[in-house]
Amino acid sequence: MDLVQKILEGDPRSAARLMTMIENGAAESVSILKSLYRHTGRAYVIGVTGPPGSGKSTLADGITGDLRQRGKTVGIVAVDPTSPFTGGAILADRIRMQRHSLDPGVFIRSMATRGHLGGLARSTNDVVDVLDAAGKEYVLIETVGVGQDEIEIVRSAHTNIVVAVPGMGDDIQAIKAGVMEIGDLFVVNKADRDGADKTVMEIEMTLHLGKETDAWRPKVLKTVAVKAEGVAEVTREILEHQAFLQQHEGQRRKGRERSYWVFFELLQERLTTRVIEQVASNGTLDRLIERIAARETDPYSAVEEVLKRAGL
Amino acid sequence: MDLVQKILEGDPRSAARLMTMIENGAAESVSILKSLYRHTGRAYVIGVTGPPGSGKSTLADGITGDLRQRGKTVGIVAVDPTSPFTGGAILADRIRMQRHSLDPGVFIRSMATRGHLGGLARSTNDVVDVLDAAGKEYVLIETVGVGQDEIEIVRSAHTNIVVAVPGMGDDIQAIKAGVMEIGDLFVVNKADRDGADKTVMEIEMTLHLGKETDAWRPKVLKTVAVKAEGVAEVTREILEHQAFLQQHEGQRRKGRERSYWVFFELLQERLTTRVIEQVASNGTLDRLIERIAARETDPYSAVEEVLKRAGL
Repeated sequence: MDLVQKILEGDPRSAARLMTMIENGAAESVSILKSLYRHTGRAYVIGVTGPPGSGKSTLADGITGDLRQRGKTVGIVAVDPTSPFTGGAILADRIRMQRHSLDPGVFIRSMATRGHLGGLARSTNDVVDVLDAAGKEYVLIETVGVGQDEIEIVRSAHTNIVVAVPGMGDDIQAIKAGVMEIGDLFVVNKADRDGADKTVMEIEMTLHLGKETDAWRPKVLKTVAVKAEGVAEVTREILEHQAFLQQHEGQRRKGRERSYWVFFELLQERLTTRVIEQVASNGTLDRLIERIAARETDPYSAVEEVLKRAGL
Repeated sequence: MDLVQKILEGDPRSAARLMTMIENGAAESVSILKSLYRHTGRAYVIGVTGPPGSGKSTLADGITGDLRQRGKTVGIVAVDPTSPFTGGAILADRIRMQRHSLDPGVFIRSMATRGHLGGLARSTNDVVDVLDAAGKEYVLIETVGVGQDEIEIVRSAHTNIVVAVPGMGDDIQAIKAGVMEIGDLFVVNKADRDGADKTVMEIEMTLHLGKETDAWRPKVLKTVAVKAEGVAEVTREILEHQAFLQQHEGQRRKGRERSYWVFFELLQERLTTRVIEQVASNGTLDRLIERIAARETDPYSAVEEVLKRAGL
């Protein structure tokens, strides 16, 4: 339990050690996370989601710089869909972020899926909790966002930034659609390229199509993150949204939502693992799969059988 | 049970009706899927995965044309990360695919996540089974592929095609990494753009880094799908891979893997829903979430409590 104390004191090496345990699925991490949990809930969590090549890292880097200038401490979690094949993406992120690497007020962590099944949203949540307990006032989660999985990763953020770039081709509508509802703020990065205003307009149009469920009206901002153009305004808008949430009790609501998602992700993972282990241990799983493959039974009936055996 | 018979006879309207039931999560769909299941396992399933704007639809369109010329029937499942916000992506796909819309040998279906939680891999599997039972000889699954979720959608395909485009920027490594292991065939589309050969080389280098677990050596092909350049070779390579799998008992292995994933996805979904419903019905869920949000307990302890109550 020495590790708990050291993390609470903000020791980066201890935080990194726990994060590695979380990523490796080490059983000891659970008791430490349990002890840390009551010290969490203070960090303000910001999601940065966008398609490949949209400059999310550079933007996150800029926002981090702005927050540091305001005297705030920052944790960054970069979620990469990487694999045992290559650690390239992780390395690239670390290099890109080296501007802050000597600053003790910034902690950067890259998360990789490493091909393991699901659980990424859960382990990202855990890492955010570690940064929160370690006293980081802002935590940025950066994801390559197109699919449902990425949305789940940032679902629990207080402010979600969706990054687009001009001229992404036919599929832009699909991307926009998938992440549209989660956006509290939209950024068209690389706005010195042709078509930036068109992309801004397209996003604004899509926003107007959506129902207004909140008093908050998401803005669409233009940036050229590599030249730091427009980034300060993005940071200001984040802080504006934070103030808005505090005024409207939104921070409490988001906190409750976050608790639900964290609980849900963890329940799903633990439940499935538990039941799969049960049926695998006595050979039932193998027999079921053989019978499904041979069309002697169907997946629905097989799952019903397993649920029944588990008394559910 | 009239619907079962009509689907087996290949009636497109009946197939579409069942697919809508599957997408809406209608309970009646389960008994129909059970009856259909023993008529499945004959279709050859092809995954087409790539980042937004890579021209997956056009490529899938071209492959479909080639297969039709060889007298084969084709089903296409286009998975879009869309939302209640906009049906634009679905519409765009339908328009793009209209070349085949009057051909009774082709059935096209767009799947949307509609913001519902998970279950997309499961419902895609179900739709593939419907097309399989309806007698389609080839089924193409098209996904905007970057994250773990998309990989799960095509995990059960016999041949997986990974599509890239030249000059995608910094994040290309992340994309490649995430989908690298699933690729049986790599296509650099829009190969008339600058940097096509560099992208081919990069993919080949990454392939050489990977362990050779199979005797199959994935090729990297160049296409300009809008001009139909190189598409015939992609189709030939798919058929080559199919022949390879048949020779090496790979089709049986893939069939077994597919059975496992279908079972796993379904089990995960049903289990979580069942348990969440149980704890929600008596107010336990609300109390637990309140206690997590108030830091009176932590997510791990809460999940353990729920598992214990469920006798797991």
